[in-house]
Amino acid sequence: MIVTDITPRVSETDGVGHINNVFVPIWFEAGRREIFRIFSPKLDFKNWRLALVKVEVEYVDQIYLANDVEIRTGIEKIGNSSFTIKEELHQTDRLCAKGKSIYVNYNFRTEKSESIPETTRKKLEKYHFS
Amino acid sequence: MIVTDITPRVSETDGVGHINNVFVPIWFEAGRREIFRIFSPKLDFKNWRLALVKVEVEYVDQIYLANDVEIRTGIEKIGNSSFTIKEELHQTDRLCAKGKSIYVNYNFRTEKSESIPETTRKKLEKYHFS
Amino acid sequence: MIVTDITPRVSETDGVGHINNVFVPIWFEAGRREIFRIFSPKLDFKNWRLALVKVEVEYVDQIYLANDVEIRTGIEKIGNSSFTIKEELHQTDRLCAKGKSIYVNYNFRTEKSESIPETTRKKLEKYHFS
Amino acid sequence: MIVTDITPRVSETDGVGHINNVFVPIWFEAGRREIFRIFSPKLDFKNWRLALVKVEVEYVDQIYLANDVEIRTGIEKIGNSSFTIKEELHQTDRLCAKGKSIYVNYNFRTEKSESIPETTRKKLEKYHFS
Repeated sequence: MIVTDITPRVSETDGVGHINNVFVPIWFEAGRREIFRIFSPKLDFKNWRLALVKVEVEYVDQIYLANDVEIRTGIEKIGNSSFTIKEELHQTDRLCAKGKSIYVNYNFRTEKSESIPETTRKKLEKYHFS
Repeated sequence: MIVTDITPRVSETDGVGHINNVFVPIWFEAGRREIFRIFSPKLDFKNWRLALVKVEVEYVDQIYLANDVEIRTGIEKIGNSSFTIKEELHQTDRLCAKGKSIYVNYNFRTEKSESIPETTRKKLEKYHFS
Repeated sequence: MIVTDITPRVSETDGVGHINNVFVPIWFEAGRREIFRIFSPKLDFKNWRLALVKVEVEYVDQIYLANDVEIRTGIEKIGNSSFTIKEELHQTDRLCAKGKSIYVNYNFRTEKSESIPETTRKKLEKYHFS
Repeated sequence: MIVTDITPRVSETDGVGHINNVFVPIWFEAGRREIFRIFSPKLDFKNWRLALVKVEVEYVDQIYLANDVEIRTGIEKIGNSSFTIKEELHQTDRLCAKGKSIYVNYNFRTEKSESIPETTRKKLEKYHFS
């Protein structure tokens, strides 16, 4: 599992006074940085390989500006060409949101999905999150 | 069903060259404006009543900067205190993303959910999307 | 001068209850779409030519969620390789923000700025804003 | 001076392949957190006091996804009711952007600016940045 600390920004709050819901998928994406790096080691875009297929977020509790949040990110399941990421957002010891996202190992030139190579699979497994 | 046209912004693209996935939930939220107005007719935050419970997005096809997108938004199901919104994103006659979001009629002062009043229910039903 | 209508989004408000200041540069960038198109007619990124050099925004009045805003965008001055865009944001007949931004005609391959060709210059002049 | 480390997000890049310019004002706002805290110690919005008057950013060099950026934030000048913040963005030992922002000590109820109290002034002076 990967832990990413994020300091909420004033621009991420909304008129109700909490963090607006759209920033949870944004923070969850931020938490996937080390997973992106497995597929694109330099984090440049010349050989970007991942395409998002599905995202799901449950909003459990309010998120406030005042305290840092902890994003927990890990691999739940690895298929042939796709894998499922499990994600949680905690603030002041409260689970505030949880979700899943499915990515496919995608070749943007041929516009086709490809099997996840064995070496990549092993790197993903290190981030197992159950 | 509500139709909202959105012109993609350069700041909403990413290094891969398409619209980044996090902007789809942002655009879907933009498409809910008339639903928000049913609960908060002045669109101010003094009596905001809606809390997001769950969001789900399937990414079907690439979204590009060059063309406007059409967000289709409507009510799929109304429960006692919550309701489900169905959402689609179309660009140049292609379905690019579809999703669902569940909101609860929430009283931010008592911090409790409340039944959806009959008059509100009727207004929601007008935006039926099957 | 170019006029772009923008409907504010809930995610663009902040806890104070108005549109957060960071979305004004975002909306001003949205207003430059037709200027970008002069340099990159297909609005793809294969031959993107513009690099932002400077941005300046004065915040004059509050911006609210409830009403559309009008972004006014035009060319104030054209130099050899750079030009100055003048920008204004109006809501319910109030000037809420105004600014300037300077772009340079930039070749991202050679990493050098280039003179603005005469035909481009003529297209820019059509959007004169004084 | 305050130093804030920020990890760039994929959603903050654009089709050109770098961090999009609109995220620089967003990151600069993130860097002002401890200054906001002087005026609103709990970082809630019940007694928010600061209104942005002006923002200015010079874009000096490209910002990439791969490396953290360092935001340097401090007070350049304190007037009667307003003050000027000086801001810099560094990445891999390169100055990539610099700016200034002017805030006014604002009473959102009376809708009037107010003198900055002596105790606040002293706290601001501790973050002097020349």
